[in-house]
Amino acid sequence: MSAVEPFAAVDVIRSKRDGHRLSDEQIDWVVGAYTRGVVAEEQMSALAMAIFLRGMDSGEIARWTGAMIDSGERLSLRVSRPTVDKHSTGGVGDKITLPLAPLVAACGAAVPQLSGRGLGHTGGTLDKLEAIPGWRAALSTEEITRQLDEVGAVVCAATPTLAPADRKLYALRDVTATVESIPLIASSIMSKKIAEGSAGLVLDVKTGSGAFMKTRAQAAELAEALVAIGKAHGVATTALITEMGTPLGRAVGNAVEVAEAVEVLRGGGPADVVELTVALAREMLALAGLAEVDPAAVLASGEAYETWCRMIRAQDGDPEAALPEPKHVHIVEAGQDGVLSTLDAYAVGVAAWRLGAGRARKEDPVQYAAGILCHAKPGDRVSAGEPLLELHTDTPEAVPAALRTLDGAYTISDTAPSPAPVVLDVLR
Amino acid sequence: MSAVEPFAAVDVIRSKRDGHRLSDEQIDWVVGAYTRGVVAEEQMSALAMAIFLRGMDSGEIARWTGAMIDSGERLSLRVSRPTVDKHSTGGVGDKITLPLAPLVAACGAAVPQLSGRGLGHTGGTLDKLEAIPGWRAALSTEEITRQLDEVGAVVCAATPTLAPADRKLYALRDVTATVESIPLIASSIMSKKIAEGSAGLVLDVKTGSGAFMKTRAQAAELAEALVAIGKAHGVATTALITEMGTPLGRAVGNAVEVAEAVEVLRGGGPADVVELTVALAREMLALAGLAEVDPAAVLASGEAYETWCRMIRAQDGDPEAALPEPKHVHIVEAGQDGVLSTLDAYAVGVAAWRLGAGRARKEDPVQYAAGILCHAKPGDRVSAGEPLLELHTDTPEAVPAALRTLDGAYTISDTAPSPAPVVLDVLR
Repeated sequence: MSAVEPFAAVDVIRSKRDGHRLSDEQIDWVVGAYTRGVVAEEQMSALAMAIFLRGMDSGEIARWTGAMIDSGERLSLRVSRPTVDKHSTGGVGDKITLPLAPLVAACGAAVPQLSGRGLGHTGGTLDKLEAIPGWRAALSTEEITRQLDEVGAVVCAATPTLAPADRKLYALRDVTATVESIPLIASSIMSKKIAEGSAGLVLDVKTGSGAFMKTRAQAAELAEALVAIGKAHGVATTALITEMGTPLGRAVGNAVEVAEAVEVLRGGGPADVVELTVALAREMLALAGLAEVDPAAVLASGEAYETWCRMIRAQDGDPEAALPEPKHVHIVEAGQDGVLSTLDAYAVGVAAWRLGAGRARKEDPVQYAAGILCHAKPGDRVSAGEPLLELHTDTPEAVPAALRTLDGAYTISDTAPSPAPVVLDVLR
Repeated sequence: MSAVEPFAAVDVIRSKRDGHRLSDEQIDWVVGAYTRGVVAEEQMSALAMAIFLRGMDSGEIARWTGAMIDSGERLSLRVSRPTVDKHSTGGVGDKITLPLAPLVAACGAAVPQLSGRGLGHTGGTLDKLEAIPGWRAALSTEEITRQLDEVGAVVCAATPTLAPADRKLYALRDVTATVESIPLIASSIMSKKIAEGSAGLVLDVKTGSGAFMKTRAQAAELAEALVAIGKAHGVATTALITEMGTPLGRAVGNAVEVAEAVEVLRGGGPADVVELTVALAREMLALAGLAEVDPAAVLASGEAYETWCRMIRAQDGDPEAALPEPKHVHIVEAGQDGVLSTLDAYAVGVAAWRLGAGRARKEDPVQYAAGILCHAKPGDRVSAGEPLLELHTDTPEAVPAALRTLDGAYTISDTAPSPAPVVLDVLR
C-alpha cells in the first residue's frame, strides 16, 4: 500500500468489524482504492462480510452508492422527453420490462433500461430478448441516446464503464457468501441505476419463494433502503413490493416469455402480468410528470405494440420472426380433479433453469427455447390427466432433474385459495 | 472448483455467517482445500471474518486446530528425556524463553522451542538470540533431535512444513483485520505447538497494555480455549495468566534482553523475570513428570547457565562474545522526586520498536543493539534528574518519535503503587 493513501484497508475493515459507522472519507477511499486494486480482493471480502453482519445505516449506504457511481462514468442522456426507468429485484416469469418499456415510451416518456443477464433461478431480460432473431444487446452511448429520442425505449446491456466498483464487488460477493445483505444489494442496484442517468426510477421489489427477499419484512427493508438512496442522490424513486410466491404469468424461460410479453402488448396475456405492467407504468409516468396519461388506454390502443416493434427493429431484431422452438416437450399432468391451490415460484424457476433457460456460471450459454408453460395458475380448476406444466428443452436428459425439482411444487385441493394481490405495497 | 470437492466454499462460509456450527467434515475440507489453493484467499478471508464475528465452540476450535496440523507434517522427536515446551502470547521485555529453556533442560527435561520473529511492539525470541554473534536459527529436524538429546534445549525457527495452513492463514488475517479472534488465535498457536511434537505444553497468556489480550477476561477466555485444545489433542497443557501492564524486567529490545537473561542465569536479574522463569519451569517440570526437581535450586547452582552456554554453542553462537552496542544512547530523566507508580508496557514496547528493535514489515531487518533499559520499575523511588529510561539505537533520528511515544507512559507520584503479582492465575 502506497504511503500516500490516507487510510489503511485493515483499519477500515476493523471499524466495521467492531460495529462502528464508516466515515464518508473511509467509504470514498475504500471503494475507490478497491477499484484501483490498492485494496485487495481478500480485504474487500472481509469488509463485505463485516458489512453483512454489522450492517450500514442509511447515510453509509447512500455514500457507498455514491462512491460506486464515482468509480465509473455517469451516462448523460441528452433526451428531449423525461427519462424514467424501472428495476426489478428479480423473480420467476418476470418479463415485465418487455411490455413495460415500450408502453411507457408510447405514453411519452423515455425509458433507458440497462439490464443484466440471468444467474441462477431468476431469468435475465437480455437473455429473453436475445431469443428474438437478430436482436443485439450491446449499444454505444450514441446509439442509446438516438434510440431514446427516436423510439423512446431502449433495453440493452449495461456498459462496463458504469459503476465498475459494483461489477468487481458483485463477482466477489458471489463467491464469498455476501450476496444477501440489504446494504450491499441496495447500493449495487442503485449505483448502476443512478449512473445510468435516469431522472426517475421505479423499483419492483419482489417477495416470496421466487424472490431473493423471501419475507415481506425483508422486502420492505430493501424497498426502504432503495428509496432512501434515491432520495439522497436526487433521483425521484418509488418502490413497489410485489408478490413472487408463484410465477408471474404463465411463461417461464426465454422465448416463451417474449411470446407472452407480445400477447400482453397486443391486448391479451395473463391478468397478473397486465396488472403489474400497468401499475408500474402508472408509477413511472407519475415520476415523469405524465400522470394524466392512462397506460391502460395506451396499451389497449395498440401503440405500445407498435413501439415494441420499433424498439426491437432499432436493435436489429425482427419482431415478426418465429421464436425458437424447443427440441423436446414434456407434459406434467394433473394427478386429480380440483383447484390448483399453490404453484411454487422457486421450484418452477429452478426447474426452468435445469431445463436450460438459465445459467449456472456467468460464461454458460442459455437455451432460448427452454422453459416452462404453466397451463394452470393458482385458483384455476384442473381435471385429472389435464396438462398442468409444459416443459421445454433442447436437452431431454435434463427433464428428470427438472421433474424432481417440481415434485411437491404444486398442490391440488378442493377449495380455491384466497386470491393474492399482485402489488402488496407502494413506498414513495 | 473441481467437481470432486465434497463442499462448495460458499456454503461453508454461509453456514458460519448464519451462526451455525461447522461440521468436522466442513472444517477438514475447508482448511485442507485452502492449503491446496482450492478455496481462494478471498473466500478464507470472508470465512475468517464470519468466524471472528460468530465465534466457534470448543469442538470446532479443536477440529480446526487438527486440520491445520494435518495440513503439514508433525515432528516426531525421538528423544530419551520427556519433552515439554512453553509458548508466550507475547509481551514487552518477554525474554523468558532465554533463561527458561536451559533451566528446564538442566532439570532433566527436553525443551524443543520452535519460535517466531517479532512483529509490531512485541519482540521475537529469534531476533533476540540473533544478537549473539554467530548464532543461527535455522536447524534441520536431525539437528533439533541431536541437540535435544545432547543439550536438552533447542530454540530455533519453526520449519515451513509445520502447519502450513496456519502460515497462510496468519498472513491473510494480518491484512484483513481478523487477528484478534480467540478461536483463530488459539488454533494458530496450538497447531504449531502440537505439530512440534512436544508431550507437554505450558502457555504464558499475558494480559495488560503490552499484551494482545488487553483485559483479564479476554486472557482467561484465550487460556481456556488453549487448554481445551491441548486436552482434545492429548497434549498435557497448563496455562498461566500473567501480568503485562508494565515491561517484564528492565530490558526491552534484543541484545539488552539477552544480557538480562544471562544475568538471571548467573543468579541475578530482575525479581519479576526470575519469579516468572521459575514459576513456568515448575509447571513444565510437573508436566514432564519431574515435579520433584526444584528449578530455583538448579538456577542457583549455575547448571542452567552452563546449559545455556552449550545451547548457544550448539547453534554456532559464542555465549561469551560481546553483544552489539548501540551507536547512540539517549537518557530520559525523572522530572521530579517521588515513586514511579506506572510504566506502561505498550508505550515502552512501541518506543523500542521505533528505535529499531522491532520490524514494521516481515521483510524488515531489526537492529540488535536497539532497545530501552528501564532504570526504575513501578514501586522504585526516583529523584529529579536521575536516569529513568535509557534509549538505545543505531538511528538517532528515531529518538524524537520514541520520545513522543513515551510521553505520558509513566507517572511519578508521592505514594507507592500496590505491588502487582506476576502470575495472576493458573489453568490446568
